[in-house]
Amino acid sequence: MTAIIGLGSMGLGMARNIVAAGLDLRGYDLAESSRAALADIGGTPTHSALDAARGCPLLLLMVVNAEQAHSVLCTDGVMDALQPNATVVLCSTVAPSEARTLGAMVAKAGHMLLDAPVSGGKVGADAGTLTVMVAGATAALDRARPVLQAISKKVHHLGDEPGIASTYKAVHQLAAGVHLVVAAELMALGVKAGCDPERLYEIVSSSAGQSWMFNDRVPRMLEGDTTPRSMVDIFIKDLGIVLQTGQEAGASLPLAAAARQMLLAASAMGHGKADDSAVIKVYEALSGNRTP
Amino acid sequence: MTAIIGLGSMGLGMARNIVAAGLDLRGYDLAESSRAALADIGGTPTHSALDAARGCPLLLLMVVNAEQAHSVLCTDGVMDALQPNATVVLCSTVAPSEARTLGAMVAKAGHMLLDAPVSGGKVGADAGTLTVMVAGATAALDRARPVLQAISKKVHHLGDEPGIASTYKAVHQLAAGVHLVVAAELMALGVKAGCDPERLYEIVSSSAGQSWMFNDRVPRMLEGDTTPRSMVDIFIKDLGIVLQTGQEAGASLPLAAAARQMLLAASAMGHGKADDSAVIKVYEALSGNRTP
Repeated sequence: MTAIIGLGSMGLGMARNIVAAGLDLRGYDLAESSRAALADIGGTPTHSALDAARGCPLLLLMVVNAEQAHSVLCTDGVMDALQPNATVVLCSTVAPSEARTLGAMVAKAGHMLLDAPVSGGKVGADAGTLTVMVAGATAALDRARPVLQAISKKVHHLGDEPGIASTYKAVHQLAAGVHLVVAAELMALGVKAGCDPERLYEIVSSSAGQSWMFNDRVPRMLEGDTTPRSMVDIFIKDLGIVLQTGQEAGASLPLAAAARQMLLAASAMGHGKADDSAVIKVYEALSGNRTP
Repeated sequence: MTAIIGLGSMGLGMARNIVAAGLDLRGYDLAESSRAALADIGGTPTHSALDAARGCPLLLLMVVNAEQAHSVLCTDGVMDALQPNATVVLCSTVAPSEARTLGAMVAKAGHMLLDAPVSGGKVGADAGTLTVMVAGATAALDRARPVLQAISKKVHHLGDEPGIASTYKAVHQLAAGVHLVVAAELMALGVKAGCDPERLYEIVSSSAGQSWMFNDRVPRMLEGDTTPRSMVDIFIKDLGIVLQTGQEAGASLPLAAAARQMLLAASAMGHGKADDSAVIKVYEALSGNRTP
Protein backbone atom coordinates (compact mmCIF):
# COMPACT_ATOMS: atom_id res chain seq x y z
CA MET A 1 0.00 0.00 0.00
CA THR A 2 1.22 3.48 -0.97
CA ALA A 3 -0.21 6.76 0.28
CA ILE A 4 -0.09 10.14 -1.44
CA ILE A 5 -0.89 13.51 0.05
CA GLY A 6 -1.41 16.43 -2.31
CA LEU A 7 -3.61 15.77 -5.35
CA GLY A 8 -3.24 18.97 -7.33
CA SER A 9 -2.51 19.00 -11.06
CA MET A 10 0.84 17.25 -10.48
CA GLY A 11 -0.22 14.83 -7.72
CA LEU A 12 -3.30 13.61 -9.52
CA GLY A 13 -1.38 12.80 -12.70
CA MET A 14 1.19 10.91 -10.65
CA ALA A 15 -1.61 9.06 -8.81
CA ARG A 16 -3.14 7.98 -12.11
CA ASN A 17 0.12 6.39 -13.26
CA ILE A 18 0.73 4.70 -9.90
CA VAL A 19 -2.74 3.11 -10.06
CA ALA A 20 -2.22 2.22 -13.72
CA ALA A 21 0.96 0.35 -12.73
CA GLY A 22 -1.19 -1.94 -10.59
CA LEU A 23 -0.14 -0.49 -7.23
CA ASP A 24 -2.64 0.05 -4.39
CA LEU A 25 -2.93 3.75 -3.66
CA ARG A 26 -4.83 5.76 -1.14
CA GLY A 27 -4.63 9.50 -0.86
CA TYR A 28 -5.76 12.73 0.64
CA ASP A 29 -6.11 16.34 -0.42
CA LEU A 30 -7.80 19.26 1.31
CA ALA A 31 -9.99 19.77 -1.77
CA GLU A 32 -13.01 17.48 -1.88
CA SER A 33 -12.99 17.60 -5.71
CA SER A 34 -9.44 16.22 -5.77
CA ARG A 35 -10.43 13.34 -3.48
CA ALA A 36 -13.34 12.55 -5.79
CA ALA A 37 -10.96 12.63 -8.76
CA LEU A 38 -8.71 10.09 -7.01
CA ALA A 39 -11.70 7.74 -6.60
CA ASP A 40 -12.51 8.19 -10.32
CA ILE A 41 -9.09 6.93 -11.35
CA GLY A 42 -9.20 3.87 -9.08
CA GLY A 43 -7.46 5.14 -5.94
CA THR A 44 -8.93 5.23 -2.44
CA PRO A 45 -9.55 8.68 -0.99
CA THR A 46 -9.39 9.05 2.80
CA HIS A 47 -10.93 11.58 5.17
CA SER A 48 -7.63 12.92 6.45
CA ALA A 49 -3.89 12.81 5.89
CA LEU A 50 -3.73 10.67 9.03
CA ASP A 51 -6.09 8.07 7.57
CA ALA A 52 -4.03 7.98 4.38
CA ALA A 53 -0.78 7.40 6.21
CA ARG A 54 -1.95 4.94 8.87
CA GLY A 55 0.16 1.78 8.74
CA CYS A 56 1.67 2.72 5.38
CA PRO A 57 5.29 1.79 4.52
CA LEU A 58 5.51 4.40 1.73
CA LEU A 59 4.18 7.96 1.77
CA LEU A 60 4.44 10.40 -1.15
CA LEU A 61 4.13 14.13 -0.54
CA MET A 62 3.21 16.31 -3.54
CA VAL A 63 2.15 19.41 -1.59
CA VAL A 64 2.92 23.00 -2.60
CA ASN A 65 5.92 23.80 -0.42
CA ALA A 66 8.06 22.85 2.57
CA GLU A 67 5.68 24.53 5.00
CA GLN A 68 2.83 22.27 3.87
CA ALA A 69 5.10 19.22 4.02
CA HIS A 70 6.05 20.14 7.57
CA SER A 71 2.42 20.68 8.47
CA VAL A 72 1.39 17.29 7.09
CA LEU A 73 4.21 15.43 8.82
CA CYS A 74 3.88 17.13 12.24
CA THR A 75 0.67 18.93 12.96
CA ASP A 76 -1.46 16.17 11.58
CA GLY A 77 0.40 13.44 13.48
CA VAL A 78 1.03 11.52 10.31
CA MET A 79 4.55 10.46 11.24
CA ASP A 80 3.50 8.45 14.28
CA ALA A 81 0.83 6.70 12.24
CA LEU A 82 3.17 5.40 9.52
CA GLN A 83 4.52 1.87 9.63
CA PRO A 84 7.84 1.91 11.56
CA ASN A 85 10.87 2.61 9.40
CA ALA A 86 8.65 3.90 6.60
CA THR A 87 9.87 5.75 3.52
CA VAL A 88 8.64 9.32 3.02
CA VAL A 89 9.08 10.59 -0.54
CA LEU A 90 9.11 14.38 -0.75
CA CYS A 91 8.36 15.29 -4.38
CA SER A 92 7.58 18.97 -3.78
CA THR A 93 10.08 21.63 -4.85
CA VAL A 94 11.67 22.93 -1.65
CA ALA A 95 14.91 24.68 -0.80
CA PRO A 96 17.88 22.34 -0.27
CA SER A 97 18.14 23.53 3.35
CA GLU A 98 14.46 22.72 3.87
CA ALA A 99 14.95 19.21 2.47
CA ARG A 100 17.79 18.69 4.95
CA THR A 101 15.64 19.94 7.86
CA LEU A 102 12.73 17.69 6.90
CA GLY A 103 15.13 14.77 6.40
CA ALA A 104 16.48 15.16 9.93
CA MET A 105 12.94 15.39 11.32
CA VAL A 106 11.81 12.26 9.52
CA ALA A 107 14.94 10.36 10.61
CA LYS A 108 14.33 11.37 14.22
CA ALA A 109 10.87 9.78 14.01
CA GLY A 110 12.45 6.52 12.86
CA HIS A 111 11.64 6.86 9.14
CA MET A 112 13.68 7.61 6.02
CA LEU A 113 13.20 10.67 3.80
CA LEU A 114 13.78 10.61 0.08
CA ASP A 115 14.44 14.11 -1.21
CA ALA A 116 12.80 13.47 -4.59
CA PRO A 117 11.77 16.54 -6.61
CA VAL A 118 10.43 16.00 -10.12
CA SER A 119 10.54 17.85 -13.43
CA GLY A 120 8.18 17.68 -16.39
CA GLY A 121 5.11 19.63 -15.29
CA LYS A 122 1.53 18.52 -15.64
CA VAL A 123 2.30 17.08 -19.09
CA GLY A 124 4.99 14.81 -17.63
CA ALA A 125 2.88 13.90 -14.60
CA ASP A 126 -0.04 12.91 -16.83
CA ALA A 127 2.15 10.91 -19.20
CA GLY A 128 4.24 9.23 -16.49
CA THR A 129 7.38 10.72 -18.02
CA LEU A 130 8.66 12.90 -15.19
CA THR A 131 12.35 13.21 -14.42
CA VAL A 132 12.93 12.29 -10.75
CA MET A 133 15.97 13.58 -8.86
CA VAL A 134 16.52 11.54 -5.69
CA ALA A 135 18.75 11.82 -2.66
CA GLY A 136 18.45 9.48 0.30
CA ALA A 137 19.34 6.02 1.57
CA THR A 138 19.48 3.21 -0.99
CA ALA A 139 17.12 1.10 1.16
CA ALA A 140 14.51 3.87 0.99
CA LEU A 141 14.98 4.24 -2.75
CA ASP A 142 14.63 0.50 -3.29
CA ARG A 143 11.27 0.57 -1.55
CA ALA A 144 10.10 3.61 -3.51
CA ARG A 145 11.40 2.47 -6.89
CA PRO A 146 8.22 0.79 -8.24
CA VAL A 147 6.26 3.97 -7.53
CA LEU A 148 8.95 6.26 -8.94
CA GLN A 149 9.22 4.15 -12.07
CA ALA A 150 5.45 4.38 -12.53
CA ILE A 151 5.60 8.19 -12.67
CA SER A 152 8.87 8.78 -14.51
CA LYS A 153 11.01 8.11 -17.52
CA LYS A 154 14.20 8.40 -15.50
CA VAL A 155 15.24 8.28 -11.82
CA HIS A 156 18.55 10.00 -10.99
CA HIS A 157 20.05 8.90 -7.66
CA LEU A 158 22.22 11.88 -6.75
CA GLY A 159 23.37 11.20 -3.19
CA ASP A 160 22.68 9.47 0.09
CA GLU A 161 21.60 12.51 2.11
CA PRO A 162 18.48 14.66 1.55
CA GLY A 163 19.30 18.09 0.13
CA ILE A 164 21.40 17.51 -2.95
CA ALA A 165 18.44 16.41 -5.11
CA SER A 166 16.64 19.64 -4.19
CA THR A 167 19.82 21.50 -5.13
CA TYR A 168 19.72 19.97 -8.62
CA LYS A 169 16.02 20.80 -8.85
CA ALA A 170 16.58 24.42 -7.78
CA VAL A 171 19.37 24.83 -10.33
CA HIS A 172 17.15 23.23 -12.98
CA GLN A 173 14.29 25.60 -12.12
CA LEU A 174 16.51 28.56 -12.94
CA ALA A 175 16.27 27.55 -16.60
CA ALA A 176 12.60 26.58 -16.50
CA GLY A 177 11.62 29.86 -14.80
CA VAL A 178 13.67 32.18 -16.98
CA HIS A 179 12.66 30.34 -20.15
CA LEU A 180 9.00 30.85 -19.22
CA VAL A 181 9.46 34.60 -18.97
CA VAL A 182 11.60 34.66 -22.14
CA ALA A 183 8.75 32.97 -24.01
CA ALA A 184 6.40 35.77 -22.97
CA GLU A 185 8.94 38.50 -23.77
CA LEU A 186 9.52 36.99 -27.21
CA MET A 187 5.85 36.55 -28.13
CA ALA A 188 4.94 40.07 -26.99
CA LEU A 189 7.79 41.51 -29.08
CA GLY A 190 6.86 39.39 -32.09
CA VAL A 191 3.23 40.43 -32.11
CA LYS A 192 4.09 44.10 -31.63
CA ALA A 193 6.68 43.91 -34.44
CA GLY A 194 4.17 42.44 -36.90
CA CYS A 195 4.79 38.69 -36.81
CA ASP A 196 1.92 36.24 -37.10
CA PRO A 197 1.88 34.60 -33.65
CA GLU A 198 1.11 31.07 -34.87
CA ARG A 199 3.80 31.27 -37.52
CA LEU A 200 6.25 32.67 -35.00
CA TYR A 201 5.51 29.82 -32.61
CA GLU A 202 6.01 27.29 -35.40
CA ILE A 203 9.41 28.75 -36.32
CA VAL A 204 10.86 29.31 -32.86
CA SER A 205 9.60 26.01 -31.44
CA SER A 206 11.51 24.11 -34.14
CA SER A 207 14.68 26.24 -34.26
CA ALA A 208 17.60 27.30 -32.09
CA GLY A 209 15.30 29.50 -29.99
CA GLN A 210 13.40 26.45 -28.82
CA SER A 211 13.00 25.51 -25.18
CA TRP A 212 10.81 22.94 -23.43
CA MET A 213 9.00 25.79 -21.67
CA PHE A 214 8.51 27.76 -24.89
CA ASN A 215 6.96 24.79 -26.62
CA ASP A 216 4.77 23.94 -23.63
CA ARG A 217 3.58 27.39 -22.53
CA VAL A 218 3.24 29.49 -25.70
CA PRO A 219 0.20 27.57 -27.01
CA ARG A 220 -1.59 28.56 -23.78
CA MET A 221 -0.51 32.18 -24.25
CA LEU A 222 -1.89 32.14 -27.80
CA GLU A 223 -5.20 30.63 -26.70
CA GLY A 224 -5.41 33.02 -23.73
CA ASP A 225 -6.05 29.90 -21.65
CA THR A 226 -5.12 30.77 -18.06
CA THR A 227 -6.66 27.66 -16.45
CA PRO A 228 -3.91 26.87 -13.97
CA ARG A 229 -1.73 23.80 -14.60
CA SER A 230 0.99 25.47 -12.57
CA MET A 231 0.31 28.91 -11.10
CA VAL A 232 2.28 32.14 -11.34
CA ASP A 233 2.65 32.09 -7.54
CA ILE A 234 4.26 28.63 -7.69
CA PHE A 235 7.01 29.91 -9.97
CA ILE A 236 7.51 32.95 -7.75
CA LYS A 237 8.15 30.45 -4.96
CA ASP A 238 10.42 28.28 -7.15
CA LEU A 239 12.52 31.21 -8.37
CA GLY A 240 12.70 32.37 -4.75
CA ILE A 241 14.26 28.99 -3.95
CA VAL A 242 16.64 29.44 -6.88
CA LEU A 243 17.77 32.83 -5.58
CA GLN A 244 18.07 31.48 -2.03
CA THR A 245 20.19 28.60 -3.34
CA GLY A 246 22.37 31.12 -5.17
CA GLN A 247 22.71 33.28 -2.08
CA GLU A 248 23.66 30.30 0.11
CA ALA A 249 26.13 29.00 -2.50
CA GLY A 250 27.56 32.44 -3.28
CA ALA A 251 26.44 32.85 -6.89
CA SER A 252 25.01 36.03 -8.39
CA LEU A 253 21.99 35.33 -10.64
CA PRO A 254 20.96 38.46 -12.53
CA LEU A 255 18.67 36.79 -15.09
CA ALA A 256 16.85 34.65 -12.52
CA ALA A 257 16.34 37.74 -10.36
CA ALA A 258 14.96 39.74 -13.30
CA ALA A 259 12.65 36.91 -14.39
CA ARG A 260 11.23 36.62 -10.87
CA GLN A 261 10.42 40.33 -10.90
CA MET A 262 8.27 39.84 -14.01
CA LEU A 263 6.37 37.03 -12.29
CA LEU A 264 5.94 39.21 -9.20
CA ALA A 265 4.44 41.85 -11.50
CA ALA A 266 2.03 39.25 -12.91
CA SER A 267 0.93 38.40 -9.38
CA ALA A 268 0.64 42.08 -8.46
CA MET A 269 -1.63 42.54 -11.49
CA GLY A 270 -3.95 39.91 -10.05
CA HIS A 271 -2.77 36.82 -11.94
CA GLY A 272 -1.07 34.97 -9.06
CA LYS A 273 -3.53 32.08 -9.16
CA ALA A 274 -3.65 31.94 -12.97
CA ASP A 275 -1.54 29.61 -15.09
CA ASP A 276 2.06 30.80 -15.17
CA SER A 277 1.73 31.48 -18.91
CA ALA A 278 -0.25 34.55 -17.76
CA VAL A 279 3.11 36.29 -17.30
CA ILE A 280 2.50 37.38 -20.91
CA LYS A 281 0.04 39.90 -19.42
CA VAL A 282 2.94 41.78 -17.87
CA TYR A 283 4.44 42.15 -21.33
CA GLU A 284 1.10 43.20 -22.78
CA ALA A 285 1.11 45.97 -20.18
CA LEU A 286 4.73 46.88 -20.98
CA SER A 287 4.10 47.05 -24.73
CA GLY A 288 0.60 48.51 -24.60
CA ASN A 289 -0.61 45.70 -26.81
CA ARG A 290 -2.65 42.52 -26.66
CA THR A 291 -0.99 39.17 -27.56
CA PRO A 292 -2.15 37.82 -29.90
CA MET B 1 25.95 28.64 -61.18
CA THR B 2 25.56 29.95 -57.64
CA ALA B 3 27.96 32.28 -55.86
CA ILE B 4 28.48 32.63 -52.12
CA ILE B 5 30.33 35.38 -50.30
CA GLY B 6 31.24 34.81 -46.67
CA LEU B 7 32.75 31.41 -45.81
CA GLY B 8 32.95 31.52 -42.03
CA SER B 9 31.74 28.68 -39.84
CA MET B 10 28.17 29.13 -41.12
CA GLY B 11 28.93 29.86 -44.78
CA LEU B 12 31.32 26.97 -45.21
CA GLY B 13 28.81 24.46 -43.82
CA MET B 14 26.16 25.83 -46.18
CA ALA B 15 28.61 25.66 -49.10
CA ARG B 16 29.33 22.01 -48.36
CA ASN B 17 25.65 21.11 -48.56
CA ILE B 18 25.11 23.14 -51.73
CA VAL B 19 27.98 21.30 -53.43
CA ALA B 20 26.72 17.98 -52.04
CA ALA B 21 23.33 18.66 -53.67
CA GLY B 22 25.11 18.69 -57.05
CA LEU B 23 24.95 22.43 -57.58
CA ASP B 24 27.87 24.39 -59.09
CA LEU B 25 29.21 26.81 -56.50
CA ARG B 26 31.90 29.42 -56.55
CA GLY B 27 32.71 31.63 -53.61
CA TYR B 28 34.85 34.20 -51.94
CA ASP B 29 35.97 35.10 -48.44
CA LEU B 30 38.58 37.58 -47.26
CA ALA B 31 40.39 34.74 -45.44
CA GLU B 32 42.65 32.70 -47.65
CA SER B 33 42.13 29.63 -45.43
CA SER B 34 38.37 29.80 -46.04
CA ARG B 35 38.90 29.93 -49.79
CA ALA B 36 41.14 26.89 -49.55
CA ALA B 37 38.47 25.12 -47.51
CA LEU B 38 35.94 25.82 -50.26
CA ALA B 39 38.22 24.17 -52.81
CA ASP B 40 38.58 21.17 -50.49
CA ILE B 41 34.83 20.54 -50.48
CA GLY B 42 34.48 20.81 -54.25
CA GLY B 43 33.58 24.47 -54.71
CA THR B 44 35.49 27.01 -56.79
CA PRO B 45 37.20 29.81 -54.87
CA THR B 46 37.66 33.12 -56.66
CA HIS B 47 40.14 35.96 -56.13
CA SER B 48 37.52 38.56 -55.29
CA ALA B 49 33.85 39.02 -54.54
CA LEU B 50 33.55 40.53 -58.00
CA ASP B 51 34.94 37.40 -59.66
CA ALA B 52 32.50 35.26 -57.68
CA ALA B 53 29.50 37.32 -58.70
CA ARG B 54 30.36 37.92 -62.36
CA GLY B 55 27.50 36.76 -64.58
CA CYS B 56 25.82 34.88 -61.72
CA PRO B 57 22.02 34.64 -61.50
CA LEU B 58 22.09 33.75 -57.78
CA LEU B 59 24.28 35.26 -55.07
CA LEU B 60 24.26 34.19 -51.42
CA LEU B 61 25.62 36.53 -48.75
CA MET B 62 26.64 34.95 -45.44
CA VAL B 63 28.72 37.85 -44.13
CA VAL B 64 28.78 39.07 -40.53
CA ASN B 65 26.43 42.04 -40.66
CA ALA B 66 24.56 44.56 -42.81
CA GLU B 67 27.62 46.79 -43.12
CA GLN B 68 29.59 43.96 -44.73
CA ALA B 69 26.66 43.10 -47.01
CA HIS B 70 26.48 46.74 -48.09
CA SER B 71 30.22 46.80 -48.66
CA VAL B 72 30.12 43.67 -50.81
CA LEU B 73 27.19 44.88 -52.90
CA CYS B 74 28.44 48.46 -53.45
CA THR B 75 32.06 49.12 -52.81
CA ASP B 76 33.19 46.03 -54.62
CA GLY B 77 30.95 46.68 -57.62
CA VAL B 78 29.41 43.26 -57.36
CA MET B 79 25.92 44.39 -58.24
CA ASP B 80 26.83 45.56 -61.73
CA ALA B 81 28.62 42.31 -62.40
CA LEU B 82 25.67 40.03 -61.62
CA GLN B 83 23.48 38.66 -64.39
CA PRO B 84 20.62 41.13 -64.98
CA ASN B 85 17.58 40.49 -62.76
CA ALA B 86 19.64 38.29 -60.48
CA THR B 87 18.52 37.04 -57.06
CA VAL B 88 20.56 38.14 -54.03
CA VAL B 89 19.97 35.99 -50.96
CA LEU B 90 20.90 37.78 -47.73
CA CYS B 91 21.34 35.07 -45.07
CA SER B 92 23.12 37.25 -42.50
CA THR B 93 21.28 38.38 -39.39
CA VAL B 94 20.54 42.08 -39.90
CA ALA B 95 18.02 44.52 -38.46
CA PRO B 96 14.65 44.54 -40.27
CA SER B 97 15.22 48.16 -41.28
CA GLU B 98 18.62 47.23 -42.75
CA ALA B 99 17.03 44.40 -44.76
CA ARG B 100 14.53 46.90 -46.17
CA THR B 101 17.30 49.36 -47.06
CA LEU B 102 19.37 46.67 -48.79
CA GLY B 103 16.24 45.39 -50.56
CA ALA B 104 15.56 48.83 -52.02
CA MET B 105 19.19 49.17 -53.09
CA VAL B 106 19.20 45.78 -54.83
CA ALA B 107 15.88 46.52 -56.54
CA LYS B 108 17.22 49.85 -57.80
CA ALA B 109 20.08 47.95 -59.48
CA GLY B 110 17.57 45.72 -61.27
CA HIS B 111 17.92 42.67 -59.04
CA MET B 112 15.72 41.02 -56.39
CA LEU B 113 16.67 40.65 -52.73
CA LEU B 114 15.57 37.73 -50.63
CA ASP B 115 15.66 38.64 -46.96
CA ALA B 116 16.60 35.10 -45.82
CA PRO B 117 18.09 34.76 -42.33
CA VAL B 118 18.73 31.28 -41.00
CA SER B 119 18.65 29.55 -37.63
CA GLY B 120 20.44 26.43 -36.45
CA GLY B 121 24.02 27.54 -35.90
CA LYS B 122 27.11 25.74 -37.09
CA VAL B 123 25.52 22.39 -36.25
CA GLY B 124 22.56 23.10 -38.54
CA ALA B 125 24.76 24.58 -41.27
CA ASP B 126 26.99 21.48 -41.25
CA ALA B 127 24.02 19.10 -41.25
CA GLY B 128 21.98 20.99 -43.85
CA THR B 129 19.15 21.33 -41.34
CA LEU B 130 18.91 25.09 -40.96
CA THR B 131 15.58 26.84 -40.62
CA VAL B 132 15.30 29.51 -43.33
CA MET B 133 13.00 32.51 -42.91
CA VAL B 134 12.38 34.19 -46.27
CA ALA B 135 10.76 37.40 -47.40
CA GLY B 136 10.85 38.54 -51.02
CA ALA B 137 9.27 38.04 -54.42
CA THR B 138 8.05 34.54 -55.29
CA ALA B 139 10.06 34.62 -58.54
CA ALA B 140 13.24 35.21 -56.55
CA LEU B 141 12.35 32.47 -54.09
CA ASP B 142 11.65 30.02 -56.91
CA ARG B 143 15.12 30.60 -58.29
CA ALA B 144 16.76 30.24 -54.87
CA ARG B 145 14.75 27.24 -53.74
CA PRO B 146 17.17 24.45 -54.81
CA VAL B 147 19.96 26.15 -52.88
CA LEU B 148 17.78 26.88 -49.84
CA GLN B 149 16.54 23.29 -49.78
CA ALA B 150 20.13 22.05 -49.85
CA ILE B 151 20.95 23.92 -46.64
CA SER B 152 17.73 23.59 -44.67
CA LYS B 153 15.08 21.33 -43.25
CA LYS B 154 12.39 23.97 -43.70
CA VAL B 155 11.89 27.18 -45.70
CA HIS B 156 9.30 29.59 -44.29
CA HIS B 157 8.05 32.15 -46.84
CA LEU B 158 6.88 34.99 -44.61
CA GLY B 159 6.10 37.84 -46.97
CA ASP B 160 6.78 39.46 -50.33
CA GLU B 161 8.86 42.39 -49.10
CA PRO B 162 12.33 42.22 -47.48
CA GLY B 163 12.25 43.04 -43.76
CA ILE B 164 9.66 40.77 -42.23
CA ALA B 165 11.90 37.67 -42.34
CA SER B 166 14.59 39.60 -40.47
CA THR B 167 11.91 40.62 -37.98
CA TYR B 168 11.11 36.94 -37.30
CA LYS B 169 14.83 36.24 -37.00
CA ALA B 170 15.38 39.11 -34.57
CA VAL B 171 12.47 37.97 -32.42
CA HIS B 172 13.80 34.41 -32.56
CA GLN B 173 17.27 35.58 -31.50
CA LEU B 174 15.80 37.00 -28.31
CA ALA B 175 15.26 33.43 -27.14
CA ALA B 176 18.52 32.05 -28.50
CA GLY B 177 20.55 34.85 -26.90
CA VAL B 178 18.89 34.81 -23.50
CA HIS B 179 18.93 31.00 -23.39
CA LEU B 180 22.69 31.07 -24.01
CA VAL B 181 23.26 33.32 -21.01
CA VAL B 182 20.79 31.33 -18.89
CA ALA B 183 22.80 28.18 -19.63
CA ALA B 184 25.92 29.85 -18.26
CA GLU B 185 24.12 31.27 -15.22
CA LEU B 186 22.68 27.83 -14.44
CA MET B 187 25.93 25.90 -14.81
CA ALA B 188 27.87 28.39 -12.69
CA LEU B 189 25.23 28.16 -9.95
CA GLY B 190 25.14 24.37 -10.13
CA VAL B 191 28.88 23.94 -9.78
CA LYS B 192 29.09 26.45 -6.93
CA ALA B 193 26.16 24.73 -5.15
CA GLY B 194 27.82 21.32 -5.31
CA CYS B 195 26.27 19.61 -8.35
CA ASP B 196 28.33 17.37 -10.61
CA PRO B 197 28.43 19.35 -13.89
CA GLU B 198 28.07 16.34 -16.21
CA ARG B 199 25.19 14.96 -14.17
CA LEU B 200 23.56 18.39 -14.09
CA TYR B 201 23.87 18.69 -17.86
CA GLU B 202 22.35 15.24 -18.31
CA ILE B 203 19.35 16.12 -16.12
CA VAL B 204 18.60 19.62 -17.38
CA SER B 205 19.13 18.75 -21.06
CA SER B 206 16.43 16.07 -20.84
CA SER B 207 13.95 17.89 -18.59
CA ALA B 208 11.73 20.96 -18.51
CA GLY B 209 14.79 23.22 -18.19
CA GLN B 210 15.98 22.11 -21.62
CA SER B 211 16.64 24.49 -24.48
CA TRP B 212 18.30 24.05 -27.85
CA MET B 213 21.02 26.48 -26.77
CA PHE B 214 21.55 24.73 -23.42
CA ASN B 215 22.02 21.38 -25.12
CA ASP B 216 24.30 22.82 -27.79
CA ARG B 217 26.50 25.19 -25.74
CA VAL B 218 26.91 23.58 -22.30
CA PRO B 219 29.14 20.73 -23.58
CA ARG B 220 31.55 23.41 -24.83
CA MET B 221 31.40 25.18 -21.45
CA LEU B 222 32.21 21.89 -19.69
CA GLU B 223 35.13 21.16 -22.00
CA GLY B 224 36.39 24.74 -21.74
CA ASP B 225 36.47 24.67 -25.53
CA THR B 226 36.31 28.28 -26.71
CA THR B 227 37.20 27.61 -30.37
CA PRO B 228 34.72 29.95 -32.00
CA ARG B 229 31.73 28.44 -33.84
CA SER B 230 29.88 31.67 -33.22
CA MET B 231 31.61 34.45 -31.34
CA VAL B 232 30.57 36.44 -28.28
CA ASP B 233 30.73 39.61 -30.39
CA ILE B 234 28.27 38.13 -32.92
CA PHE B 235 25.64 37.64 -30.21
CA ILE B 236 26.27 41.15 -28.89
CA LYS B 237 25.40 42.31 -32.40
CA ASP B 238 22.37 40.01 -32.63
CA LEU B 239 20.96 41.06 -29.26
CA GLY B 240 21.60 44.66 -30.30
CA ILE B 241 19.34 43.99 -33.30
CA VAL B 242 16.76 42.43 -30.95
CA LEU B 243 16.76 45.54 -28.76
CA GLN B 244 16.62 47.83 -31.80
CA THR B 245 13.65 45.83 -33.12
CA GLY B 246 11.97 46.18 -29.73
CA GLN B 247 12.64 49.92 -29.64
CA GLU B 248 11.26 50.42 -33.16
CA ALA B 249 8.20 48.28 -32.42
CA GLY B 250 7.62 49.76 -28.97
CA ALA B 251 8.29 46.74 -26.79
CA SER B 252 10.27 46.76 -23.54
CA LEU B 253 12.65 43.78 -23.30
CA PRO B 254 14.19 43.57 -19.82
CA LEU B 255 15.58 40.02 -20.09
CA ALA B 256 17.12 40.55 -23.53
CA ALA B 257 18.72 43.76 -22.27
CA ALA B 258 20.15 42.03 -19.20
CA ALA B 259 21.46 39.09 -21.23
CA ARG B 260 23.24 41.45 -23.62
CA GLN B 261 24.98 43.12 -20.68
CA MET B 262 26.44 39.77 -19.66
CA LEU B 263 27.79 39.24 -23.18
CA LEU B 264 29.21 42.77 -23.18
CA ALA B 265 31.00 41.84 -19.96
CA ALA B 266 32.42 38.73 -21.63
CA SER B 267 33.75 40.89 -24.45
CA ALA B 268 35.11 43.45 -22.00
CA MET B 269 36.96 40.62 -20.24
CA GLY B 270 38.69 39.85 -23.53
CA HIS B 271 36.51 37.02 -24.85
CA GLY B 272 34.81 38.87 -27.71
CA LYS B 273 36.39 36.67 -30.38
CA ALA B 274 35.94 33.45 -28.37
CA ASP B 275 33.01 31.06 -28.81
CA ASP B 276 29.87 32.56 -27.27
CA SER B 277 29.84 29.76 -24.68
CA ALA B 278 32.70 31.75 -23.09
CA VAL B 279 30.01 33.90 -21.44
CA ILE B 280 30.37 31.34 -18.62
CA LYS B 281 33.58 33.20 -17.74
CA VAL B 282 31.51 36.20 -16.67
CA TYR B 283 29.70 33.97 -14.21
CA GLU B 284 32.94 32.45 -13.02
CA ALA B 285 34.02 35.99 -12.20
CA LEU B 286 30.69 36.74 -10.50
CA SER B 287 30.81 33.62 -8.37
CA GLY B 288 34.55 33.57 -7.72
CA ASN B 289 34.66 29.99 -8.97
CA ARG B 290 35.81 27.93 -11.93
CA THR B 291 33.23 25.95 -13.93
CA PRO B 292 33.67 23.06 -13.87
